[in-house]
Amino acid sequence: MQNRQIVLKAHPQGAPTPDDFGLSTCEVPTPGEGQMLVRNLFFSLEAAIRGWLDGKANYFEPIPLGGAIRGPSVAKVLTSHLPGFEAGDLIFGLHHWEDYSLSDANTILLSKLTPEADIPLSYYAGGLGGSGHTAYVGLHEIGKIQAGDTVLISAAAGATGSMATQIAKLRGCKVVGIVGGDNKCQLVTKTLGADAAINYKTCENLTDAIHEACPEGVDVYFDNVGGKTLDAALNCMNTFGRIIGCGMIGDYNDQDNPTPLFNMWKLVEKELTLRGFLLYTYMDKVPAASTQLHHWVRSGELTVLENITEGLDNAGLAYSEMMRGATVGKNLVAMDLRDDESIS
Amino acid sequence: MQNRQIVLKAHPQGAPTPDDFGLSTCEVPTPGEGQMLVRNLFFSLEAAIRGWLDGKANYFEPIPLGGAIRGPSVAKVLTSHLPGFEAGDLIFGLHHWEDYSLSDANTILLSKLTPEADIPLSYYAGGLGGSGHTAYVGLHEIGKIQAGDTVLISAAAGATGSMATQIAKLRGCKVVGIVGGDNKCQLVTKTLGADAAINYKTCENLTDAIHEACPEGVDVYFDNVGGKTLDAALNCMNTFGRIIGCGMIGDYNDQDNPTPLFNMWKLVEKELTLRGFLLYTYMDKVPAASTQLHHWVRSGELTVLENITEGLDNAGLAYSEMMRGATVGKNLVAMDLRDDESIS
Repeated sequence: MQNRQIVLKAHPQGAPTPDDFGLSTCEVPTPGEGQMLVRNLFFSLEAAIRGWLDGKANYFEPIPLGGAIRGPSVAKVLTSHLPGFEAGDLIFGLHHWEDYSLSDANTILLSKLTPEADIPLSYYAGGLGGSGHTAYVGLHEIGKIQAGDTVLISAAAGATGSMATQIAKLRGCKVVGIVGGDNKCQLVTKTLGADAAINYKTCENLTDAIHEACPEGVDVYFDNVGGKTLDAALNCMNTFGRIIGCGMIGDYNDQDNPTPLFNMWKLVEKELTLRGFLLYTYMDKVPAASTQLHHWVRSGELTVLENITEGLDNAGLAYSEMMRGATVGKNLVAMDLRDDESIS
Repeated sequence: MQNRQIVLKAHPQGAPTPDDFGLSTCEVPTPGEGQMLVRNLFFSLEAAIRGWLDGKANYFEPIPLGGAIRGPSVAKVLTSHLPGFEAGDLIFGLHHWEDYSLSDANTILLSKLTPEADIPLSYYAGGLGGSGHTAYVGLHEIGKIQAGDTVLISAAAGATGSMATQIAKLRGCKVVGIVGGDNKCQLVTKTLGADAAINYKTCENLTDAIHEACPEGVDVYFDNVGGKTLDAALNCMNTFGRIIGCGMIGDYNDQDNPTPLFNMWKLVEKELTLRGFLLYTYMDKVPAASTQLHHWVRSGELTVLENITEGLDNAGLAYSEMMRGATVGKNLVAMDLRDDESIS
């Protein structure tokens, strides 16, 4: 049986393009002792993947030219020689962009999913998966949000930002989103319920725009982008403000030339705390987050924004669109299943 | 009776020079209701003062041209109309560079000193005052140092750095100091007991030099300078490392052109915490710090490095020397007292 893989054809120069990705086929592997063969169903497209495409060590090994792209997926177990898992189980884990993967106890982020019948399975790859958990844990554990806080969120229309915007509102905060486009401003205020939105591409001066939207100052800044946005936010923080260092996507496309930051002095002057975090350090906080997020989704208070691209062949294109900021919400690739395969 | 004052003659261009300061005389003021007249004895020269010389709002009001320089001093109360204080008391507070000052309940940092008979009074303006307390509180409250941690300290031969270096050693940490000069390297390792010292001015690459001195990585970085040193330290931090944002003196001489930082991504990748702090937020921690520091000074385990300049006339020169990095330890100006005046 053939296994299609999306492989790295060229190291992207700046933002990736569909030409940086290629299609390769190989035999479906046979699971050995302690391994499972899984059928990938949904791939979660994540900014972090960009860091693995440059051929340099990041916090994971780089992906070699010709190697399959690594990415987290929701998958169904076909054959299991791994205790605790059996055929038919649905799992989440860091696999490769391919039809079928091997998974074992060392698979990063491996967890068994127990999807609720009334919830779309794709949510578990995003809003009720890593993106939602990251937003929830970041706001609570790192940002220590309290009702009444003013919370500034960058990439507020993105996978994590769209969840963070809604969660902060549900917690009684004032929320201002920063986005790159007027349509995204509309989305953030009208659909996600933010109190205000700033289009960083068209505002004259981002610091002034934040001051105007937050005359009372910013208590918590959920930073998904770093760079100039972080620099501007530093100017607007209240004393003892908290900055959640979630991502710095602004620099992912050109890691050799990160955007310089000039306002770090504010950290001392305003006694700010800037703390970076990665979700997998806070896995003990995920069950409670998941319960609360499910509750809000069911009650209709929380909207999971998804942008689903159909078909493995289109993964490179979908990823390129996301990394040039053309999309909103959680970007997923839904695998094209054969006639004899099914999600459930 | 005449009161001499050191006033701001010109906004410094870059590092201050003695010509930026002038001498002015006025009448000694008469204390009104709720005020005291105090005789300044020792001025603590502090990097933060530089921020008030540019004519722009910093975290305090700027000093106007012709205005007296503001600075903390140890002083003796001559006349008091302020409840709780009486003639003969020794106090600490933010006054002006002048012979005699008015002080009241709103005087910033105002506290009554109860100097121990066996301790030089000047220590209360530095090592057993703000510098020592800042080092102690920063390491414990912000850096959360533990025995066995590797602690990196910039400006390690300075007022705060020299105390932090010794305190971290006394707490069982490995300590590496960064300084600007080979003589300072000697001082930091031989006199202060650091495990290693790096001369940032002569090392080829600061990141490499830190890696070499700390092959196990850095757990806590006590940042007194910001800029390129902070950028290099970011490269060398261990996961969950803590960065104590105490000062960013590297930029104080040219605040309109702060040194850009490029390695902020490390905050996310390594899940670092960078927290700025100002001592006056942690005044509840000062009594315990003071007790411990006194104990170590008496036992001879802690050396208070002082660089005392005699005479108010020389304050501008002394400050200029400090701000070009020419000095070590705590810089103080000892006031030239009249024959009928005494310290005690």
